[in-house]
Amino acid sequence: MVNDYQIVRTIRFKNVNEVGILGKLTTAIGKTGTSIGEIKTVHMGNRYVARDIDVFISGKAHMAKVLREVSKIKEIKILEIRDAVLEIHQNGIIKMMNTVPINSLDDVHKIYWPGVSEVCRLIGENEKWKNSYTIIPNNVGLVTNGSAVLEFGNIGPVAAMPVIEGKSALLQEIAGINGIPLLMNSGDPDIIVQTIKEVESTFSGIQLTGISSPQCFSVLEKLESEIRIPVMHDDQQGNAVVALAALINACKLTNSVLNEATIGVIGLGITGTAIAKLLFEYTGKPVMGFTRSKTSIARHVLNGGTLASLEQIMRMADIVIATTSKGNVIRPDMVKKRQIILALSQPIPEIEPDKALEAGASLAINSKAINNSLSCPGIWRGTLDARSPVINFEMYKAAALAIADSTTEGEILPTTLDPKAHIAVAHAVAAAAVKSGVARRKLDGDYFEARDIKSPPRG
Amino acid sequence: MVNDYQIVRTIRFKNVNEVGILGKLTTAIGKTGTSIGEIKTVHMGNRYVARDIDVFISGKAHMAKVLREVSKIKEIKILEIRDAVLEIHQNGIIKMMNTVPINSLDDVHKIYWPGVSEVCRLIGENEKWKNSYTIIPNNVGLVTNGSAVLEFGNIGPVAAMPVIEGKSALLQEIAGINGIPLLMNSGDPDIIVQTIKEVESTFSGIQLTGISSPQCFSVLEKLESEIRIPVMHDDQQGNAVVALAALINACKLTNSVLNEATIGVIGLGITGTAIAKLLFEYTGKPVMGFTRSKTSIARHVLNGGTLASLEQIMRMADIVIATTSKGNVIRPDMVKKRQIILALSQPIPEIEPDKALEAGASLAINSKAINNSLSCPGIWRGTLDARSPVINFEMYKAAALAIADSTTEGEILPTTLDPKAHIAVAHAVAAAAVKSGVARRKLDGDYFEARDIKSPPRG
Repeated sequence: MVNDYQIVRTIRFKNVNEVGILGKLTTAIGKTGTSIGEIKTVHMGNRYVARDIDVFISGKAHMAKVLREVSKIKEIKILEIRDAVLEIHQNGIIKMMNTVPINSLDDVHKIYWPGVSEVCRLIGENEKWKNSYTIIPNNVGLVTNGSAVLEFGNIGPVAAMPVIEGKSALLQEIAGINGIPLLMNSGDPDIIVQTIKEVESTFSGIQLTGISSPQCFSVLEKLESEIRIPVMHDDQQGNAVVALAALINACKLTNSVLNEATIGVIGLGITGTAIAKLLFEYTGKPVMGFTRSKTSIARHVLNGGTLASLEQIMRMADIVIATTSKGNVIRPDMVKKRQIILALSQPIPEIEPDKALEAGASLAINSKAINNSLSCPGIWRGTLDARSPVINFEMYKAAALAIADSTTEGEILPTTLDPKAHIAVAHAVAAAAVKSGVARRKLDGDYFEARDIKSPPRG
Repeated sequence: MVNDYQIVRTIRFKNVNEVGILGKLTTAIGKTGTSIGEIKTVHMGNRYVARDIDVFISGKAHMAKVLREVSKIKEIKILEIRDAVLEIHQNGIIKMMNTVPINSLDDVHKIYWPGVSEVCRLIGENEKWKNSYTIIPNNVGLVTNGSAVLEFGNIGPVAAMPVIEGKSALLQEIAGINGIPLLMNSGDPDIIVQTIKEVESTFSGIQLTGISSPQCFSVLEKLESEIRIPVMHDDQQGNAVVALAALINACKLTNSVLNEATIGVIGLGITGTAIAKLLFEYTGKPVMGFTRSKTSIARHVLNGGTLASLEQIMRMADIVIATTSKGNVIRPDMVKKRQIILALSQPIPEIEPDKALEAGASLAINSKAINNSLSCPGIWRGTLDARSPVINFEMYKAAALAIADSTTEGEILPTTLDPKAHIAVAHAVAAAAVKSGVARRKLDGDYFEARDIKSPPRG
């Protein structure tokens, strides 16, 4: 079984330049249950070769095990162990930079004073020109207060910055969007909403992220009614779209019909609630839900859901989505034959996929593939290109169908960097915005640009 | 006389490839009082040559005059007229982008999930690590509500965006700083302060810009006492530092002593008030001020200034700084012999420099050279590198002296892109922060890094 790693270390090995040693080395690492990442040759001489090998580990004890196993190989010497993640995050991983050269005073006169006054006058006369002559149409604010970040929960806005930078880097790389970090200090939904309203003009979209429950629900709801630009909470809609796409493909692979399936969601936190809601909207059939939180139950019922116990869901549901944040709460003997199970908690899923399959499930996956970096960039590209003021159900549905449709035969989901998938999502979302009547943009005979999404396929 | 241009147009000319025609052409343009910018050869054949010539004009009538004069030259054909400024500002001139390559899933695992969780944990344990592993120490928020922008006054935050983008582009190009735009909707100082306090964690400095009087004064004052990161208002301190530098050199050139001079400021708007304040702090001598606004008078007196009429200032002052926003309010007969005059209003100065010199002034300049892009990048680089929580008078003074000292012999100020000047400012400001006791940072035996400021001199 592959470990649920959280740390990446780079080990630099030196060995005599002989055939077969890399095989011994990778076999030894594999034996400790360790995933291997990139392998780079850093020196290739007549006698010696040196390589950097990334290993994904869960902590110090795990690392010690790897080193113990590797040091049994006599031909190999460990030169150093480095922290590949910290190396990459040195000074942060994003940058606000100029896109035009500034090499002469003439350049300054055009990009800045006095030339810029012409651009200001134009926009002052008619605000629509902001779409041609500023970065605003391409700006999405990435807003967090750091109250629900990864496995940490409330670590505050500053410690959440590396995640925000990662999201921003992916938004630019995948979809050519400026993801602008906005760290908020407050946990009060009204203050968060008020602050976003005050700076709304800077952006053409707001992506809420890492905001805890129940604040995230009221913040999203208020913003949707009070600001004129689209809002999405990636931990809600971003994840739900990917889960829906996974289920569409899971049903295809197991010859079941999603619209006829009995569906249950175990754990109604931020993601669970959003998945149940999207599945209800998609199938038109009430989704069973289980949680101990009374406010979450009320929200689920308000969203059209029904209630059931964990055991009832496991007994009745054809499709089970578990988002409890607790490992191993589903025992193998609870699994119904031919059940489809998404066990999404981290770092330990509700049931290990292999155990669920052994117990008779027809398909089981954990959270590794369910990542909203598969949905968010394309959803934003499509929404911005269509100049839609909202992201509605039709657009989320179109995104899920496009992701499902971009998946390689036999897989559940495409990989994060598959440009075909992101382009498909952008096109589908923009078209759905126009078709559902919330956007009216037509460009060059098509609905939108899907600009800047890179087309050459990558690894 | 050179025109006070506000618009840049690019004219593409074609002519027979003969010696002397470019001379005729540039002479004809010069005859209309038009400044010429960049000249690019776009085609050079055996028979014909085509060139793009940027001209700085004040409007349609001016352009017509240029075209009339040029069309008298028979060998020349005008191919097209383009708007060079709008071309450059297409889609904006800045971009939030990733600084690390994202080419594989391994890269994603390091820059984003799951690797990033290690970085978050580190910062969660001790916030100081934000300085090593996020972009926060290099972020300056560029905050405007668009209420006092260039010659337009209140054109609102969206129409102010091109100016903000220009400032951001220069901050990155000159000083390697992320200038992050933040457009605010409100004119209420309390709301502006509250909003900045809420998003303070995102930044390590706040640059207020384009905010009208009197709100800008109370916003700056409140922020200085209520947030933990340094704040500067470029229209106040940024301009005042450059004006002080100009006066230091003006005194050198005219063999006068700044500390002994009688100084008067005509017009106590945002920049005038700040200049008077900085000059009082620098010389220790009260500065005479004139304005019609009662609240501005009160502020000037509070800042240690005295009051006088325009005529009194012109009669008594050795140094006059005029920032009235009104053209030609100083008549040549008011000029005192050997007076130093900074006539800073745009687009028409209080008195044209050549007229002031004719009337007996020893030195006179208009606003063209007084631009805070000469002071702000270096002030921020020094402040951020020293990790100073404030920018105090000692730091502004150090910046002014460094600018004055970086000026070519015989000139009043360095040019905007002179890297030597910006590096000197950064070093001086960081050293002043440490010396004045507000920062304690020492790096590699020096006070600071002044990193990313480019050293090769440019045109």
